[in-house]
Amino acid sequence: MKVVKFGGSSLSCAEQLAKVFQIVVSDPERKAVVVSAPGKRDAEDTKVTDLLIECAASYLQGKEDNEAFEAIVGRYESIAKELQLPREVVEGIRASLLQLLNSDRSNPQKYMDAVKASGEDNNAKLIAAYFQFKGVEASYVNPKDAGLLVTDEPGNAQPLPETYESLYRLREHAGIVIFPGFFGFNEEGEIVTFSRSGSDITGSILASGMRADVYENFTDVDAVYSVNPNIIRQPKEIIEITYREMRELSYAGFSVFHDEALMPAFRAGIPVNVKNTNQPDKPGTMIVKERKLTNGPVIGIASDDGFSSIYVSKYLLNREIGFGRRLLNILEDFHLSFEHMPSGIDDISIILRQQQLSESVEEQIVQRIKEELHADDVKVQRDLALIMMVGEGMRETVGTAARASTALARAGVNIEMINQGSSEVSMMFGVKAGDERKAVQAMYEEFFAGVTV
Amino acid sequence: MKVVKFGGSSLSCAEQLAKVFQIVVSDPERKAVVVSAPGKRDAEDTKVTDLLIECAASYLQGKEDNEAFEAIVGRYESIAKELQLPREVVEGIRASLLQLLNSDRSNPQKYMDAVKASGEDNNAKLIAAYFQFKGVEASYVNPKDAGLLVTDEPGNAQPLPETYESLYRLREHAGIVIFPGFFGFNEEGEIVTFSRSGSDITGSILASGMRADVYENFTDVDAVYSVNPNIIRQPKEIIEITYREMRELSYAGFSVFHDEALMPAFRAGIPVNVKNTNQPDKPGTMIVKERKLTNGPVIGIASDDGFSSIYVSKYLLNREIGFGRRLLNILEDFHLSFEHMPSGIDDISIILRQQQLSESVEEQIVQRIKEELHADDVKVQRDLALIMMVGEGMRETVGTAARASTALARAGVNIEMINQGSSEVSMMFGVKAGDERKAVQAMYEEFFAGVTV
Repeated sequence: MKVVKFGGSSLSCAEQLAKVFQIVVSDPERKAVVVSAPGKRDAEDTKVTDLLIECAASYLQGKEDNEAFEAIVGRYESIAKELQLPREVVEGIRASLLQLLNSDRSNPQKYMDAVKASGEDNNAKLIAAYFQFKGVEASYVNPKDAGLLVTDEPGNAQPLPETYESLYRLREHAGIVIFPGFFGFNEEGEIVTFSRSGSDITGSILASGMRADVYENFTDVDAVYSVNPNIIRQPKEIIEITYREMRELSYAGFSVFHDEALMPAFRAGIPVNVKNTNQPDKPGTMIVKERKLTNGPVIGIASDDGFSSIYVSKYLLNREIGFGRRLLNILEDFHLSFEHMPSGIDDISIILRQQQLSESVEEQIVQRIKEELHADDVKVQRDLALIMMVGEGMRETVGTAARASTALARAGVNIEMINQGSSEVSMMFGVKAGDERKAVQAMYEEFFAGVTV
Repeated sequence: MKVVKFGGSSLSCAEQLAKVFQIVVSDPERKAVVVSAPGKRDAEDTKVTDLLIECAASYLQGKEDNEAFEAIVGRYESIAKELQLPREVVEGIRASLLQLLNSDRSNPQKYMDAVKASGEDNNAKLIAAYFQFKGVEASYVNPKDAGLLVTDEPGNAQPLPETYESLYRLREHAGIVIFPGFFGFNEEGEIVTFSRSGSDITGSILASGMRADVYENFTDVDAVYSVNPNIIRQPKEIIEITYREMRELSYAGFSVFHDEALMPAFRAGIPVNVKNTNQPDKPGTMIVKERKLTNGPVIGIASDDGFSSIYVSKYLLNREIGFGRRLLNILEDFHLSFEHMPSGIDDISIILRQQQLSESVEEQIVQRIKEELHADDVKVQRDLALIMMVGEGMRETVGTAARASTALARAGVNIEMINQGSSEVSMMFGVKAGDERKAVQAMYEEFFAGVTV
């Protein structure tokens, strides 16, 4: 049994919905379908979710926003028309949305969440109607009725444990389940939305609750790439990757989707198949618990810039018990999370995301480190990029670090930092942001030229 | 003007003292001579300092130790005889030592320090007598009269700031200053000794206070080697090395002497010349503030085993502000100092010296990390070796990490950890203790074969 999820771009227009229908009915295993709100039809288009936010914002300021309202309903209308669905479908959507917009606004956050969630909710209703219209047994299921209970954190809801047991019952549901993504209900029965890529989260939770054999995540790419396509033209596609590898790759700004969205599926050990709605016959990428190490030691290379390092040196630092801890204490006072902490004998460097480090925060921190820790020297280096090399094979293969650093040397890239030794599946290199592309290209050249991943 | 220091092996017998005399008088710049107590004449021999400790221990238990006492005086006697010094010299030593041993023992620590210090003090008196006997203007100077004031920490005294100004006056001293190493006086006028290699410390303090042009440190090796001679036969000798490089090399169990002993000279920017008493014409090693980068990027390779790593993994660890700090807090509760802290996305490893980590401490720490930090996994790996590659040239040279890791790969050594990015002059590799020799040999092969350092 499969749980299938379609993103906004896969549901942007009638033509796409027709594809989705074909995909679902072509495989009787596809039992539950999680849908997003209609996405962009082209680059200039606006997502329904964004229109809803705009509309809700106006209503919260006490003014109606007919333009946005009509634009939203219009999107569903055009789809319904093209699919020749009965008028009632759109009438229902129009009525319920209007009612929602005019509902209690005493809690703006809750109000906003409810309006945003309607994008998916109404789309699910429309799609269910479409399936029925095509003579397939399918029905819209409301997350509340299904028992998708979540914590009361608007925009960052977490599923409650009992949710999974409740969702298991959906296996007994007659016909195909059409399920809206992006939100659940708190214990008071109020709508609460997930974080970004919320539909991925819903799909992942559903797959886990229903104990699906596979969670199919349909997007608009053929597969997860071994490297950022903006850096390498037509990079190798990854056929099979482990959860761990996926997680480490997702870290450094590299991902088709937010890896945390997949955690419920990962935790339940359910394979995730990333596929392309427009190329459903392609195998896509399979994200699994374990894989055989067929290809080279490295499966992917990710990179991200926007890091800074704070260098602290003090004579006999390594004798001073508690120095590192007191240093981290200071960062914590500014609510800074650090990424890495390479250290020499009389020095420690702290690598952290630059956006956390405003000029003024930087000043205060440097000040405090000098005064409280009596450091001999404190320097801040900005604009670093981290390059992450990932692969389950690395820890068994002698010489991976050598190949990588040799490739960087060949490309004339100076290595500012190497961090290896904790993670078994990744190795990290710090370079100047200006060298990021060059560095990634050199490593890709070294590990992927000729190798099929 | 030069301050010269001779170690115990350079002062173990009359023959050695004759060499010392020749060395000192051969250069009129050699103004002050810091001496240790007579050291071993051969492998089976006992250092005078050790005999003194033995003797003092007995006296503290209320029993005289004539054997040890005679052995001590005997050492000075045999030297004095061979050098044909007047009987009074040894008589004086005998009398003063006897008086010292029978002095107030109410404070055992202070008593022990005073008895230990007499080894250097009496040797300085004997050597001064010898120089005078040879018709050279030289005299014993007592650290108290010279104003060598130190903190009241027996066995770990630190010089007080005013000391340096007082010692400057020694420049005006008539003739050569013969100065006992290893101890100073606290503000109450009591003897307090320095930590190990105490004579090196005295020499370093004297060089700094007297603003010497060079501090000559005479030992029994021709030079500082680029790598441990027990691992590489006849390794390259280092002609010139910077303070920073020396310090980093000294870290990983690598050193002719305790680098901290040289700090007063380093701080004052005084070059330190390590020379061999038995080969005084050899240039030895010059330790300087800055050097020209003539040879390759690497000047030395040091290694040390006996490290453990504590691996901690937890999902979303890198989002948890304060995780690293709380982890270090736990270590601190056990008074553990850590060496390095490589980190992945969901994991942190802590590298620390193994001897700190008893089975029971390990158990408790693992327990607490699991319970208090809710870690998913905590693993301890023992018997790691750290290999430190040092050189001022490294930061300007692209590809040093590549050469090193390639050399290790060629030797079939698996790299457990790489720590680079904080120190500008060193790079650290972690390997299994069993691979230490192989790893150091491979790196030496790579960076020194053919290059003269």
